[in-house]
Formats: sequence, structure tokens, C-alpha cells
Amino acid sequence: MTERIAVRGAMGLPVVGMVGGGQLSRMTHQASIALGLSLRVLADKTHDSAALVANGVEIGDHTSLEDLRAFAAQCEVVTFDHEHVPGDLIEALEADGVQVHPSAAALRHAQDKLVMRERLSGLGVPVPPFCPVATREQLAGFARHVGWPLVLKAATGGYDGKGVWVVSSAEEAEEVLASGLRLVAEQFVPLQRELAAVVARSPYGQAAAWPVVETVQSDGICVEVVAPAPRLSEERALEAQGLALRLADELDVVGVLAVELFETADGLLVNELAMRPHNSAHWTIEGARTSQFEQHLRAVLDYPLGATQLTAPWVVMANVLGGDPDLEDGGFDERLHMLFARDPALKVHLYGKEVRPGRKIGHVTALGGDLDDVRRRARGGADYLKDGQWPS
Amino acid sequence: MTERIAVRGAMGLPVVGMVGGGQLSRMTHQASIALGLSLRVLADKTHDSAALVANGVEIGDHTSLEDLRAFAAQCEVVTFDHEHVPGDLIEALEADGVQVHPSAAALRHAQDKLVMRERLSGLGVPVPPFCPVATREQLAGFARHVGWPLVLKAATGGYDGKGVWVVSSAEEAEEVLASGLRLVAEQFVPLQRELAAVVARSPYGQAAAWPVVETVQSDGICVEVVAPAPRLSEERALEAQGLALRLADELDVVGVLAVELFETADGLLVNELAMRPHNSAHWTIEGARTSQFEQHLRAVLDYPLGATQLTAPWVVMANVLGGDPDLEDGGFDERLHMLFARDPALKVHLYGKEVRPGRKIGHVTALGGDLDDVRRRARGGADYLKDGQWPS
Repeated sequence: MTERIAVRGAMGLPVVGMVGGGQLSRMTHQASIALGLSLRVLADKTHDSAALVANGVEIGDHTSLEDLRAFAAQCEVVTFDHEHVPGDLIEALEADGVQVHPSAAALRHAQDKLVMRERLSGLGVPVPPFCPVATREQLAGFARHVGWPLVLKAATGGYDGKGVWVVSSAEEAEEVLASGLRLVAEQFVPLQRELAAVVARSPYGQAAAWPVVETVQSDGICVEVVAPAPRLSEERALEAQGLALRLADELDVVGVLAVELFETADGLLVNELAMRPHNSAHWTIEGARTSQFEQHLRAVLDYPLGATQLTAPWVVMANVLGGDPDLEDGGFDERLHMLFARDPALKVHLYGKEVRPGRKIGHVTALGGDLDDVRRRARGGADYLKDGQWPS
Repeated sequence: MTERIAVRGAMGLPVVGMVGGGQLSRMTHQASIALGLSLRVLADKTHDSAALVANGVEIGDHTSLEDLRAFAAQCEVVTFDHEHVPGDLIEALEADGVQVHPSAAALRHAQDKLVMRERLSGLGVPVPPFCPVATREQLAGFARHVGWPLVLKAATGGYDGKGVWVVSSAEEAEEVLASGLRLVAEQFVPLQRELAAVVARSPYGQAAAWPVVETVQSDGICVEVVAPAPRLSEERALEAQGLALRLADELDVVGVLAVELFETADGLLVNELAMRPHNSAHWTIEGARTSQFEQHLRAVLDYPLGATQLTAPWVVMANVLGGDPDLEDGGFDERLHMLFARDPALKVHLYGKEVRPGRKIGHVTALGGDLDDVRRRARGGADYLKDGQWPS
């Protein structure tokens, strides 16, 4: 392992830089404050979510090696709030001697779905049947094995349902095939539900897993996460955690690794990987002894990892999605008033982001002993913050 | 109530300004991030605890009306991390139409011990026998009633044991009497232990109380807080909470009010008041559903207050005090490694402050079902962070 070049801040503690100024950086900054650190953030714009709240903000382009180098020079360790930094630039930083976590070699598996699928298949990890496709003929050939409809995914660049198409025929895929995107076709898996196994791993090789959660998607966007996943057998939970821990090790991940899983009648399949704090573990802020944001910092700094146990029997996180930006009510100020009056125990997280329909602009977390009640509170609160209407 | 002049930030949410850049501002900033806000901070220096981590930092003098006015103009609501802003300057801001919480009239009772003692006596609230003293004769006269030793306190400006003297004779008090300070003499109360009742109150008049805690002092500095206070009868707990809620109402406090109490054989006596987040409630960050920092923001913004219930049977906070600044070990970076390895469930808060012997530079919080164990973990962790030595 490369020797770390000490770049120290207050109290002689290491300076961590995070590339990307989104809500993950914002919440990592909150966690960094407790550890005596102040996160440095490389943001696109001064009004990015994290740039609004952190002191050490650089405005720059995460696809510019010059900007990345200037940023890295001020940090002891560099990590990411997204997967959009090109791998060759991360490699260039590594060649400079910068401590980057996760490494370019690990992160590739979260940046490129084809690379990930091939690597996981090679490791014997269950994934949906897949095939790289570029032409109608290749697609039709794959469909003969798995049937229609099937799923087409852009190998790189997709998120929150973007870059994913369900197609029922080669004709329907025409436009996507003509787009010039590198594509992976996958079986449309008859799934029972989606789960996520989130773990963290340090350079030393220590790893820790949070309880496996159920994630609920709508239009390809995660809307709700239930911890722990209801009605999940201990055997299946251990299998999911074991899979995530094994992948963290095999891929040499440092930091948080989120493994999105399909639960099917035949068992678990890996859907996606993310190597950063992830929406499926926002519930850990209040719901686990150590949040994913603190844990990510501990991991990239090679500190011993924190305890991951639940702080309540049930924890439900619901995302607040942007509603109509022109809604003529009292806005978030009024909605917070009404929400706090109705549910004094609900925990609210708003990201300081401009409202766009469907955009993730915050989340709420409810905790308690009765799953139905906790779920109703979280969903109701998130829906209310969206547009000032209580669910009927 | 004065109409608030809207000064809005991201998501149309109000901008809160806090005067003072210490750890209370730092932790309030953490809480503000979740609510979609970014705290504005008026700090003395760029390396103040909160100035290191917040984006909206102004450097200025909290005893300059010009600086306070310039700061207040950028805020919808102004509040404080300390009691050192002169009352007449706060009154001038109020006359300008600035929303200041707590008000100058309320804050006086946390700024001036004589004003506080006289007001509380007038309200029939039990306080230690006291007397303003300026001369040896007055002191000797008071001593005839309460006996020696007695306690001399500077009416204004004291903190963490500073401005407090225990004297056994008029001769011993000579130097303090000659200092020119306004002094209050008090009976040296034979106390069983110290408690704190912390509440919050909004302009609307809503109030909420956390469980009463036991505080442990050493050399006048709070070193440990146990929530809830062990072996406290429900009757006594309700009495303490009722007292704090009544004082918040009578003094028209807005924000957090901490009431430091002496428990004696004859009942409770009020020792001190603080009208801001307070060391005796740092445990609420992990140990209560709503932290005092979030609650203070909700209160000064006149939002409905959050739930105050405990998240674990026992919560113990121990302050990390500065040790030898020249200690030749690996510093806080190494100490965090060792501490995290030993206790993965301990929560650490470091304030980014320069180490000076005895200075509060952080705190740790332990939670669990066994009080002795929780207490041992918190104390051990705080001691270790001080000087890299485990208690024997």
C-alpha cells in the first residue's frame, strides 16, 4: 500500500476530500464534523447541496485532471460522492501517489455494468442472465434464450432509472440501439422484491455489515427502505451479507459498498453495485449505531469500523421527491411546521436542492416497534413534504 | 410579537444566524444541515470551532453593534452560542426589528447571577441563600447567617468554574473583593449531587423537556452527564422538569433553557441558568429522538418541537478535556484508531479546537442497558482521548 502523505487539519487530523457536491457529500460532511474533521468538497457549483454547508469547498470539474490534481493536493485521502470521475483520471491520481478510495480498479465495477456482470459471473456470484448487445440480431439472439420482455441498460452513466429500458421486441429497442450507447441486455427477472446488503471495508481489510434491508422502487427510483428487511430468513440475510462482504474483499473495495439484490423464487441475484454512501443506507443516520457516512469516513481513513447494530426494532426511510416547483403553498417552511406538528418523532433531512419533479430532495426516517405504523409515518411524511398533501 | 422579515436560503427556508463560533455553534450547524438550513455563524476567528465547518461564516466582534447589525441583516432569526453579547446591544437589535431569541430581557437571567437570583427568589423558586456583597463588612454580615465557608461569584462573565471562589474567612476574600467585580455571596450548599433539567420553548409557547440528568463536576467543570439521573424518584424528576418549564415560561425564554440544580437533603435548589444548547444535553445527539441542537433551531424558528424520549435505557456523555499539548504520541489520529478498535459503539465528537490543558475539546457518548458499563465506556474513552492512557 502506498504510504499516505499527511495533509492535516484541525487537531492534527487528516483532511478527507470528496469529489462531488451532492447530498452524499452533504451528509458525509455532517458526519465528518463529529470526528473533528471538515470535509473538503470538489463541487460543480456553489449552490450544490454540500457546497451550501461545508467550509472547504472547491468549485471544479470532476472530469478535469487539472482540477482533480489541484483538489487532491489539499487532501490526505480522496473519495467520491458519485461514479462519474473517469477511471483513467483516477488512475492518474493514483500514479501521482494520491490515496484514492475506492481505487480506480475497484470503482470500475460500479461504473460499468458490463465489467461488473462479467467479473461477478467469473466469481460465481449469481447475476441475471446478461449479454452485451450492439445490434438487433444480437438482441434477438439473446431474447431466444431469455424471452421478451427484456431489459436494456446503458453500460455506463445510468442512475435512478435513467439508462434503463424494458423492451418487448427488437423493434422497440431500435432507438436505443441506434443511440451509440454501449448496452447490456438482461433477462427481465421475475422478482419477489428488492433487497440491499450494505457493508464497509477498510484498507486494512476490516469489514462490517449493516442488517439487510428491503428497498421499494417506483419508476426506477428508490422511494422507501425498510430495515431490517421484513420476513427475511436469517439464512437468506446471512447469505446476502456474506455476498456483499465477499464482493468487498474480491473487488478490494475501500469505503461503503452497497449491493442491490433481486430476491427471486430461486434465490438472490446481484442487480447493481455502488461504492459510496448509498440511498439504501440513509436510514443508518438514526437507525444504526454508526451511520454509513461516519463509516465511510472511518473506512477511507483506515480507522477501525463502527458498530452497525440497529437502534430500534424497525427503521423506515422514505425519499422526499420533488413535486410541482410552482406550487402555491407556503413552501417547505410551512410544510415543516405542519409535519413537525403532526409527527414530533419523525426525522427530516432536506438537501438544500432546487425542486424538480421526481428529483430526490430529501428523506425522512421513522423508528419504532410497529412496522406498519413506522412505515405509514415515513411514507406519509415524505409524501406531505413533496406537495403539502396528506395521503388519503 | 414582531413580524419576522423573511431572509430565506436554499429551498425557501429561513436563515438562522448564531453569534459565537464555539462547539455549540458547530453542533448546531450539524443539526441545521438536516433541516435543509445552513447556519450563519458570527465568529471571532477563522479557526473557531464552528468557523472550520460552516459555509456562512462572518468574522466579527460580538461586542460591536456595527458587526452585530451587519450580521443580523443576513439572518431571519438571530440566536447565541454564549452569553457574552452585552444586553444593550441585543436591545438595539430588537429595536431595529431583528428577531432575537432568546430576547435581551430573558437572557439577562443567564448573564447576571444577581439578577437571576433576585428574580427567582421573587418567583418563589428555591435558590441557595445569597447576598450581593462589595465589602468585608457585608460579607462578614452574610456569613453570620450562613456560616463559613461560603461561595463568592462574579455576577457576570464566569464559566467552567472561573469567577467562582470558595472562601473560609473575610481575609481570604480580600483579593476578590478588591478586584472591582460585582459579587454575589452564596451559602456553601451541602449538596448530594448536581442535576440538570433541560427544556426548550418556542415563541408560540410550546415547550418540551428532556429527562432530568445527573451532572458530575470536577474543579468546576462538567466532566460527565448521566441520562436519566440514576435513582431519581419520579416525583423529584417531575418537580425538576416542572421548575424548568415554569422558568422558561416566566422568563419568556425562546430556545433551549438548561437549569442546573443542586439536590440537597431538603430538596432542589436552582444553581445556574443557560439559555442556549448546553453541555448537560450533549448526550441528546444520539441519546434522544431530538437533539438539543435541532430543538434549539426548531424553537427559535417557532417550529413545533421534536420528541424528547430516550433512545436507550442509559446514556452517558463524558467531556474530553485538553491534556498536555506537547505530548509525544501519535496525537488524535492515533488515539482515534485505538479508541475505535477498543469500543466500536462509542460515539466521538471532537470540536476542532486547539488543545489547552483542561479545555473542553470534545465529548464522547455511550449508550446501553447496563449503567456501570455505559459509564465505564464513556469515562474511559474520554480519558483516553485526553492523553492516550487507558484508566487503570
